[in-house]
Amino acid sequence: MSAMSEKTTREQIVEAADRLFYRQGYEHTSFADIADDVQISRGNFYYYFKTKDEILDAVIDRRLADRREMLARWEAETESPAERIRCYIKILVTNQADIKRYGCPLGTLSSELAKLNHEAQGEAKALFTLFRSWLRRQFEALGHEAEADALALHVLAASQGVATLANAYQDNAFIRREVEALFDWLDARIAEVKSAGEGAGKKVPRQRRRRAGH
Amino acid sequence: MSAMSEKTTREQIVEAADRLFYRQGYEHTSFADIADDVQISRGNFYYYFKTKDEILDAVIDRRLADRREMLARWEAETESPAERIRCYIKILVTNQADIKRYGCPLGTLSSELAKLNHEAQGEAKALFTLFRSWLRRQFEALGHEAEADALALHVLAASQGVATLANAYQDNAFIRREVEALFDWLDARIAEVKSAGEGAGKKVPRQRRRRAGH
Repeated sequence: MSAMSEKTTREQIVEAADRLFYRQGYEHTSFADIADDVQISRGNFYYYFKTKDEILDAVIDRRLADRREMLARWEAETESPAERIRCYIKILVTNQADIKRYGCPLGTLSSELAKLNHEAQGEAKALFTLFRSWLRRQFEALGHEAEADALALHVLAASQGVATLANAYQDNAFIRREVEALFDWLDARIAEVKSAGEGAGKKVPRQRRRRAGH
Repeated sequence: MSAMSEKTTREQIVEAADRLFYRQGYEHTSFADIADDVQISRGNFYYYFKTKDEILDAVIDRRLADRREMLARWEAETESPAERIRCYIKILVTNQADIKRYGCPLGTLSSELAKLNHEAQGEAKALFTLFRSWLRRQFEALGHEAEADALALHVLAASQGVATLANAYQDNAFIRREVEALFDWLDARIAEVKSAGEGAGKKVPRQRRRRAGH
């Protein structure tokens, strides 16, 4: 909060737009809504952004930077790829208040831009791809080289589905249950590699070597 | 097609609105878009609907009637609750062209109305609840009495997640893989009941009796 005054006007606009796009949708949010939220004049606003598309690009960039930072933090906090994947899954619980009201910020923006056939669809997809690539690397580190991308997409899809239903039903018990089910699914994927490794006598050491390289 | 001329103007409006709300979103669709699509005058249009909220209610009613009919058809076509659940999962493949372009009609409407904090949120949720209750009954018939509702929500969430990612990535192989994974998950749920039934020597006949009652 004390850092608030140090934010540039541009940063304040993008922050407000990010929040409003998430809470009320991109299409439904007007220039006036954003200007009112930041409490600046329309003139000042237009100095920074001429079109809503420009704001959208800046919001997506902001989200990309924010999520990249989060993933880097998880990587710094734990060496374990399984624990890192659990960090991702746990967002459903950590952010459940917002998810219950507004859904997932990435999934709902992606869906909305697809319907608008908006040219920023590709940039919004890059947000999914950020998580997809990061999850894929964790599954590779777990020893799931061949199907790492499929497993990453499965985790992404599962969490998107939980977010959509949590938004419709506002049901904490449902969220907890699905998070536990995903943890169990992940444990089963880890067990698969371990038993294959014991059988082949190779996979586990290879995986350890790779992990040490992080 | 030959029945087209027999549709009432009201039906044509609701059908066009349903399609447009799905393809371009509720918020983004104007009265003019719908009137143009049906090729009627604004005056004629206003005779049937005074507000977009009224059209939304009619679209949700239409979707409810349409999906109820689909579920009744599946119930008529097969006695097997497992096969009925597979019919639901297979929508992801049957409708994949639309899902890749526009996502799931139910999930995207539910998410959009939540962001608009629209009073029809409850009615949109009724669409999910229609499938939830129907899936729950199938899991009960399979012998999963206690956790039938949780299993129903899991299937709903899984399919929502696949729709969101299919919409972002337009990836048929991903859809097929996730449908197969859901089939495997369902087989495991069936096997659970069977092995419990063999242990207790009771559950399987009970389940058969119930199924015969349909």
